Amino acid sequence: MLIATPQSMHFADVLPLQSGASIRAYDLSYETYGTLNADKSNAVLICHALNASHHVAGVYLDASGEVVDKSEGWWDTMIGPGKPVDTDRFFVIGVNNLGSCFGSTGPMQVNPDTNEIYGADFPVVTVQDWVDAQACLLDALGIQTLAAVMGGSLGGMQALSWTLQYPDRVRHAVVVASAPNLTAENIAFNEVARRAIVTDPDFHGGHYGRHGVLPKRGLRIARMIGHITYLSDDVMNEKFGRQLREISAIHETGYRFSTQEVEFQIESYLRYQGDKFSEYFDANTYLLITRALDYFDPASPFGGDLSAALARASAKFLLVSFTTDWRFSPARSREIVKALLDNQRDLSYAEIDAPHGHDAFLLDDERYLGVVRSYFNAKVAA
Amino acid sequence: MLIATPQSMHFADVLPLQSGASIRAYDLSYETYGTLNADKSNAVLICHALNASHHVAGVYLDASGEVVDKSEGWWDTMIGPGKPVDTDRFFVIGVNNLGSCFGSTGPMQVNPDTNEIYGADFPVVTVQDWVDAQACLLDALGIQTLAAVMGGSLGGMQALSWTLQYPDRVRHAVVVASAPNLTAENIAFNEVARRAIVTDPDFHGGHYGRHGVLPKRGLRIARMIGHITYLSDDVMNEKFGRQLREISAIHETGYRFSTQEVEFQIESYLRYQGDKFSEYFDANTYLLITRALDYFDPASPFGGDLSAALARASAKFLLVSFTTDWRFSPARSREIVKALLDNQRDLSYAEIDAPHGHDAFLLDDERYLGVVRSYFNAKVAA
Repeated sequence: MLIATPQSMHFADVLPLQSGASIRAYDLSYETYGTLNADKSNAVLICHALNASHHVAGVYLDASGEVVDKSEGWWDTMIGPGKPVDTDRFFVIGVNNLGSCFGSTGPMQVNPDTNEIYGADFPVVTVQDWVDAQACLLDALGIQTLAAVMGGSLGGMQALSWTLQYPDRVRHAVVVASAPNLTAENIAFNEVARRAIVTDPDFHGGHYGRHGVLPKRGLRIARMIGHITYLSDDVMNEKFGRQLREISAIHETGYRFSTQEVEFQIESYLRYQGDKFSEYFDANTYLLITRALDYFDPASPFGGDLSAALARASAKFLLVSFTTDWRFSPARSREIVKALLDNQRDLSYAEIDAPHGHDAFLLDDERYLGVVRSYFNAKVAA
Repeated sequence: MLIATPQSMHFADVLPLQSGASIRAYDLSYETYGTLNADKSNAVLICHALNASHHVAGVYLDASGEVVDKSEGWWDTMIGPGKPVDTDRFFVIGVNNLGSCFGSTGPMQVNPDTNEIYGADFPVVTVQDWVDAQACLLDALGIQTLAAVMGGSLGGMQALSWTLQYPDRVRHAVVVASAPNLTAENIAFNEVARRAIVTDPDFHGGHYGRHGVLPKRGLRIARMIGHITYLSDDVMNEKFGRQLREISAIHETGYRFSTQEVEFQIESYLRYQGDKFSEYFDANTYLLITRALDYFDPASPFGGDLSAALARASAKFLLVSFTTDWRFSPARSREIVKALLDNQRDLSYAEIDAPHGHDAFLLDDERYLGVVRSYFNAKVAA
């Protein structure tokens, strides 16, 4: 069993941001699994997506040494001893991004310039900024070159950006269920989620902390929208279909004939997901991370020419997509594949036939895990 | 030019509802175009979808006889003199459904039992109830049999339900961009929209009228979500892509680096749509109509067997779907086609290759309009 221990690193140097703003000093929460080898060549950095953290793998122990229930890291199927990314072989690093709400410096922390909670004043951060901060963490850990950088969804964007910002520091990039940028539809869903948060009367322009309230209504809606886009139509029909929450004896149809009560299982599920999320996730972080998604577009400085943009990348690539992922469809991964091929880069690409939509990248799918395992064994460890 | 004149019919008889509740007395707003022939055999009933009304075709004149700007009916491309549904030949009826907010009895009107505005007390109505009320309107107009009943989306569900509830009163049913029921994903989007409305502090349990406020925040979010599902990914990319609202001179990326300001054109478009909608649409109506969508499922009393459910239908059918419609995909129309074929019914089916998603059913597409024109000329008028 892999036991995880969260750590924190303080950075006293100013971090200049893509926007022109900067962060004067900051902390990054991180975890490591496995052992860094003597020549420091076996490090694998894992980048997280919207609502995840540095707690990538393993479990936590409580004060009495008992395993904390449901404390498995978010990619525990992928990373650990004997797993596809084998911590008996690799030194794996999980890091919480700047602006997040799981320990790294973000909107919930105190702004050293004002001694007030950042709230809405936390500067807008981008994928590029996150990668710069991650590079500072590697410097502090004494790691020059990554055996691999890896991530799914927004994490995959960071992995891709690593190969462009620090091409000499990355041997392999594993980009799962990702895209070279967001489509208009992707941005649209983010925008609706943001509007739900921002127009919640408890948002107070992002300074809800000063008012002792939380914009939970908005966060619930945001999470419900997000959740729909993570799942495929297929898996929703299979898991929920038109099932009613309970067959009422009152009416032959089974319906309650109510617009506000739960009628269908899918409603109950979404409300539960929204409620749970609103209890632990920070609203300003949600805004920042969805904006980082919107902004990511490495081809933009090259007039939209992704092949030109990726010419800088010298890493070898594994790309994985999932057939029913309509958030970041296989066609988006194929754009990256094509741009890399245009540059005659070494790459492997797997399109996994899985019913679970975008969520598939977090799930226990044999073929998917097998592809990653093979890649790490045959290419990264070689 | 077709001039439209809204009319209203009062019904003093109780309307029993599917839920077991009833409406004691009610009014239906409607419009008619063209002339009913002597044997009353040329009537075409048009059923509307979520946010439309009885104003199907033609324009309104103001008091001085001038055409009111942008007053064209919502299906004016389809219906009028010389149009696919030709009002020189057919007597076309548009009717606003019960529970709507465009003149027919609904939540914004006074409940005769309490002398207060219905608000949240308006009974839950279903597609079946709407069809029953529409049948009462036909009775009042002296029309026994419809040459055709026709609708798109939720309107298509009403057309389908007509063939099951009143098989002897319908010669043809034209069902466009519709489905035999909602999928879990469809229900999920409706539920998020409803939650946004219901959790708006200005909703007051649906009795906002008594508090002199309107839950516009919730309605805006609901409409933005809806709008995303009406458009295809393709058309969004083509119309908006990743275009910024304006290229700012401030930063080389063109970004403002703001989580709350509009950055992308798609955001501006969605906010505009949400704002506009929240100015004229009633929140309780939104809840009622999305619930009617959720509930529609004619196969349910037949254990989910759509073929068994449609055995009652004796009408001839035209079904139309659009390739990029992911809200009510062609596969859903094909389910209806298959069930009708199982019953050896007379049907035509067109799958139109159009980029516009679900919205295509309202747009000016030559092939689509041509299919409907041919069907009316060759079959309905025959």
